[in-house]
Amino acid sequence: MNQDYIIPNAWSIIEEGFEKDRVKSSESLFSIGNGAMGQRANFEEFYSGDTFQGSYIAGVYYPDKTKVGWWKNGYPEYFAKVLNAPVWIGINIEINGEQFDLNTCKEIKNFRRELNMKEGLLDRSFVATLPSGLEIEVFVRRFLSADLDELGVIKYDIKPLNGDAKIVFKPYVDAGVKNEDANWEETFWEPISSEIKAEQGFVQAQTFKTHFNVVTFMESKISINGSYQQVKSIFNVKTNTKVEFTYEVEVKTNDTVTIEKFGGYVVSTNHLENELISAAEKVLEQANNLGYEQLLINQKEAWAKTWEMADITIDGDTKAQQGIRFNIFQLNQTYSGKDARLNIGPKGFTGEKYGGSTYWDTEAYCLPFYMVTKDQKVARNLLMYRYNQLDKAIENGAKLGFNKGAALYPMVTMNGEECHNEWEITFEEIHRNGAIAFAIYNYTRFTGDESYIPEAGLEVLLGIARFWKQRVNWSNDKKQYVMLGVTGPNEYENNVNNNFHSNYCAQWCMNYLIDQVENVKTNYPQDFERIVAKTNLTDTELAEMKNIAANIYFPFSEELGVYLQQDGFLDKDLTPVSELSNEERPINQKWSWDRILRSAYIKQADVLQSFYYFEDHFTKEQLEKHFDFYEPLTVHESSLSPCVHSIQAATLGRMNQAYTFYLRTSRLDLDDYNKEVHEGLHITSMAGTWMSIVEGFGGMRVKNDQLYFEPRLPEQWKGFSFKINFRNQILKVNVNKGETTFELEGTKPLEVYVFDQKVIVQPSI
Amino acid sequence: MNQDYIIPNAWSIIEEGFEKDRVKSSESLFSIGNGAMGQRANFEEFYSGDTFQGSYIAGVYYPDKTKVGWWKNGYPEYFAKVLNAPVWIGINIEINGEQFDLNTCKEIKNFRRELNMKEGLLDRSFVATLPSGLEIEVFVRRFLSADLDELGVIKYDIKPLNGDAKIVFKPYVDAGVKNEDANWEETFWEPISSEIKAEQGFVQAQTFKTHFNVVTFMESKISINGSYQQVKSIFNVKTNTKVEFTYEVEVKTNDTVTIEKFGGYVVSTNHLENELISAAEKVLEQANNLGYEQLLINQKEAWAKTWEMADITIDGDTKAQQGIRFNIFQLNQTYSGKDARLNIGPKGFTGEKYGGSTYWDTEAYCLPFYMVTKDQKVARNLLMYRYNQLDKAIENGAKLGFNKGAALYPMVTMNGEECHNEWEITFEEIHRNGAIAFAIYNYTRFTGDESYIPEAGLEVLLGIARFWKQRVNWSNDKKQYVMLGVTGPNEYENNVNNNFHSNYCAQWCMNYLIDQVENVKTNYPQDFERIVAKTNLTDTELAEMKNIAANIYFPFSEELGVYLQQDGFLDKDLTPVSELSNEERPINQKWSWDRILRSAYIKQADVLQSFYYFEDHFTKEQLEKHFDFYEPLTVHESSLSPCVHSIQAATLGRMNQAYTFYLRTSRLDLDDYNKEVHEGLHITSMAGTWMSIVEGFGGMRVKNDQLYFEPRLPEQWKGFSFKINFRNQILKVNVNKGETTFELEGTKPLEVYVFDQKVIVQPSI
Repeated sequence: MNQDYIIPNAWSIIEEGFEKDRVKSSESLFSIGNGAMGQRANFEEFYSGDTFQGSYIAGVYYPDKTKVGWWKNGYPEYFAKVLNAPVWIGINIEINGEQFDLNTCKEIKNFRRELNMKEGLLDRSFVATLPSGLEIEVFVRRFLSADLDELGVIKYDIKPLNGDAKIVFKPYVDAGVKNEDANWEETFWEPISSEIKAEQGFVQAQTFKTHFNVVTFMESKISINGSYQQVKSIFNVKTNTKVEFTYEVEVKTNDTVTIEKFGGYVVSTNHLENELISAAEKVLEQANNLGYEQLLINQKEAWAKTWEMADITIDGDTKAQQGIRFNIFQLNQTYSGKDARLNIGPKGFTGEKYGGSTYWDTEAYCLPFYMVTKDQKVARNLLMYRYNQLDKAIENGAKLGFNKGAALYPMVTMNGEECHNEWEITFEEIHRNGAIAFAIYNYTRFTGDESYIPEAGLEVLLGIARFWKQRVNWSNDKKQYVMLGVTGPNEYENNVNNNFHSNYCAQWCMNYLIDQVENVKTNYPQDFERIVAKTNLTDTELAEMKNIAANIYFPFSEELGVYLQQDGFLDKDLTPVSELSNEERPINQKWSWDRILRSAYIKQADVLQSFYYFEDHFTKEQLEKHFDFYEPLTVHESSLSPCVHSIQAATLGRMNQAYTFYLRTSRLDLDDYNKEVHEGLHITSMAGTWMSIVEGFGGMRVKNDQLYFEPRLPEQWKGFSFKINFRNQILKVNVNKGETTFELEGTKPLEVYVFDQKVIVQPSI
Repeated sequence: MNQDYIIPNAWSIIEEGFEKDRVKSSESLFSIGNGAMGQRANFEEFYSGDTFQGSYIAGVYYPDKTKVGWWKNGYPEYFAKVLNAPVWIGINIEINGEQFDLNTCKEIKNFRRELNMKEGLLDRSFVATLPSGLEIEVFVRRFLSADLDELGVIKYDIKPLNGDAKIVFKPYVDAGVKNEDANWEETFWEPISSEIKAEQGFVQAQTFKTHFNVVTFMESKISINGSYQQVKSIFNVKTNTKVEFTYEVEVKTNDTVTIEKFGGYVVSTNHLENELISAAEKVLEQANNLGYEQLLINQKEAWAKTWEMADITIDGDTKAQQGIRFNIFQLNQTYSGKDARLNIGPKGFTGEKYGGSTYWDTEAYCLPFYMVTKDQKVARNLLMYRYNQLDKAIENGAKLGFNKGAALYPMVTMNGEECHNEWEITFEEIHRNGAIAFAIYNYTRFTGDESYIPEAGLEVLLGIARFWKQRVNWSNDKKQYVMLGVTGPNEYENNVNNNFHSNYCAQWCMNYLIDQVENVKTNYPQDFERIVAKTNLTDTELAEMKNIAANIYFPFSEELGVYLQQDGFLDKDLTPVSELSNEERPINQKWSWDRILRSAYIKQADVLQSFYYFEDHFTKEQLEKHFDFYEPLTVHESSLSPCVHSIQAATLGRMNQAYTFYLRTSRLDLDDYNKEVHEGLHITSMAGTWMSIVEGFGGMRVKNDQLYFEPRLPEQWKGFSFKINFRNQILKVNVNKGETTFELEGTKPLEVYVFDQKVIVQPSI
């Protein structure tokens, strides 16, 4: 835990007191989003202190020229950068001729931020003494409409407390922005035009290369003590990147002047390019028709609806409660599931780092959250995203020398093309293909939606299985198939041979494909015909896969009774992590890479990732043995690590350990465990937090179309509850000391199993 | 072979005919150097076609900001770039008001370049028809004085053939230059001042960051038909980066006008910074005193002296003769051995690529050439270079987590600091430490100079042995010491375990250290005391090393009877290179990196590198078995590969194979085997070519202070000869069909062994 300033609260993230060195951290933590756009908690007004400006539009990226030491064949030409979008929130403020800037105020009292997660609102309030001595009370509310997802709303109140004031608001939109992490310090936006129509301002810009065309727009209203004033802009700035209005108001002591600003983005991915300005006008018209108060009501209603299904309650542990809600809130801010072209970036709308939007995190960590708490079409959209990019994955495979439809999905992507370039990851961390195949199985198992595989999934499985088939080779020495030169989920090993997890994924995937080919052939003959015609699938090919799957090699220690992470793992020094001194950790900041590589230390679940995906392939004794061998060697230096271990510790009944891992995952950013929250939040691992509760403490599993629970209550809690959407029946699970109860909002009774005991749950509605 | 335009000639590199697409290739091949500076064969006059400008000053580098994809702890902050230095050769020419430019001439006849290697002269001649129709005959000679190593000389003749001409020469010096491969497109030179004194021009500039201060200077004279004219510059350009003079001459048809330009560099590494201009004046004064003709005579004499010792003759094979002389010539141009601060960059003075000056190439490939053909202090200087950088190597080790004086020499360096950043090389290609230790042994063995080890070498050996001691770890599984996470000389494997060559170097080095500690303790007790006090060497430490060396693991296949390149090598597909299609080669241009890594294909000698270093540790049967196992898997995609294989093929009596490898190494650049000669020449591998003859065909070895030869004549040759300096006795070895003869320029008879037959060679002088 590296910070402790967020005030525990069940429904809100709260900061009190203004500290300049927390500004960037809070900018991340108080980020807001609505699935279509997002905004770091930058101040509306000018701020001369240290800040990291960030405003993001879903799906809008820039293919930055790659930065690489030594070029390798097969590297992509570009790295998709999450783009800092034009500013729509900006309101410069002058009070009695002074620029208002929190960094230069004489005093700031009662500073408070609250991110009201229940209602999707970001509030900021304080009393500031300006250099002139004037004291003002300020309240700012901001939200991104969950309803009209191209719209953001700001209400900015100022009340002079010890004198009258001439207050000048200068709301602006500005496309003259840069990315902090641009590789070559280039600008990514090309200004196109700007326009002023009455009190409305528009700036049109497009991204270089990708040509995403965006109009950033705004309109503002002024009111005093709640009454709208007929104030017009007295001076307009209009350059090719910026429009700024100037509203001047004389405000009496203790009167409150308010500027309401509507702003946001309309994008060429959703509108015709030459209709962007009129689309923006339409958004403003809708916003004006509803008005601020109604927009606020709609916002609260939309979030109430989201929470209705997604909420998890924890009784008796406010910090844990705050943590899980923060995770759920951010997941819902990042991805709404409405648009199959979008995905879940590792930093969501809270920072630029990592680039690209889609990692294996989506399938391995995020899918379950959306699949269980949303309408199943959301999860299906996530699967379709990969189906739609299958051709690109086949092209990517071909770049690396594979053929005949073998698909290697990219490590990082925006549009299906690889945009990551480190050979040991890009070319070798191929278990991502396994995660993508597993997600198809996981989705089908949970939702019971048998249609996805014949319609789309089988082709993805085939592309991936073909990749595995070509990626292994026959070892004359071992007389088995081996897979050489791989990086597993544990990225603290590179270019190893026979990574257990990768080999296991390959074996399972080929077998699963063979089963599903049989299934589709029998049950969906038309689909089967179409797929065979399209892919040239042959029986010989399947027979070869079957043979490979049956003869794939797994490193195993007879002596220890454990599968080895890779060949040669037992040559390492196996001193447990607990014996490392604190000065040496995190090892990724303290040790050189070669030392990390030759150590036995594990970044995140690797063999245990197989045990997570395929829990029912192994006995509990096997799980225990492997957990006891690998967890003590694990440094958990990936945000994706604690959740899997929390679930497995819970499965093994080790509740204290499970709880410790849970806290680490759920408050990773709030408490800044990794000293990097200023860069943005760890969005994808937040879904792992959700899994820790539902799958770990709740022990939820689906086996043979039936729902199982093995609830285990951490002793720190009085109880917890969560809801799931199981095959269109909404089931609420309440776990309390000694009992687990169910409430069903479905229409027909649901059979569930608690520790293998069958329970019939009756609909409550 | 990718080009074939160099005309075979025993003593010269000759190009006939002007082809624009050969310009960059010829700029490399016709490069000249004198150990202190070097110059690509760029034209003196303006050339608007495709060209790669390059002028280089030994030891002057720029620490370019590193370009890296993902930062790793332990990476250096900079990459030492070979610097493109200010221009001293430039002479712009206007003829009857037209700029003279070979790229825009109507016709170019009789174009000829000759690099006269015997005399160290670069000549260029042609007849050009200018756009105006005027025909001129041109002859240009250029050389870098081997005598006055800060001086370059140009003689530029023009004869108008079909009309009188007003010819304007504009000789200039210019520090406004860039590097082609600057990582961030920055300039590396900061202009300081420029000065004109009568007909002398000076430009002073310093490198950013490293602050090498350089004055580039010039002075020119004009003559007509051989008589010097009293022509003064009529117009001077003087900016902060450039000085240019203007000489105007009226020339009659068939008269020859000549400009002689003296120019060059004086550098702050050799002069006080505030005396650079006067140092430059002194160089010009010396040059003027000697005059062009005498400078030319001195140049011929200096090169004659170099060839006297370094020449290898080959009878009956002009291309092979030209190849070996080209190699010897370039080696002598690159490194004279006078200055222990300098080293042998892989591209010498012929290009920018690779950066840095010192690789393991120096010890493994270059040392023997200089050690055998020069005074032994040249080789000692090369060893002292590493001794002088021992502290930096210990610091480098510490950066990677090693301690107690463990030294890891950098992969690439200018001043002892690492300046390469690819983790798999920088951190893991540690056999370079082995090469550096081996060179000490090799030097002592050949020269009989017992003093180097007590004076300096032992400390280097100790630092390296300490590194090995810490770099291995005990494998509880194998019950032996293992070395994990290594890249061997075969860089087509990364991060492997128990690379045979690295383990062998480690074992040998620890044992050799232990022997030499005993030697120094017994024979040089004062040195021993000094070293123990300085290094805290203890008996326990040596005992631990002894134990490790005795228990180090080597992967070995009982079935095949061969040591394995690394753990798991036999899991690979062992299809020989001969079955790869031509379209797939070179694999480093055709295959993605992961595919290369998991293939069995070998870039250059790896296990066989141990067999080269330590030939006498293995039987000829073992060599044959390993050669037959590894060579067929070797793609020789390093310029350092063919020479070792040529020597070993010769040792095994496979003369055709040895000859093929020899041709490939000796004409690598002349025939552009690797399609990259335009980037510069492969200087360090040229020493390998020399080894192929002396150690391969000549079969020269030193064992127990005695000189052995196993001469083997390729059937393509009638004979060959080479000279060696064995312990200050100069021996010429003549190998002809059926007989080997010796001529000794020493003072006392020399015992040599030919195929184990003792021969007593009598001094001829």
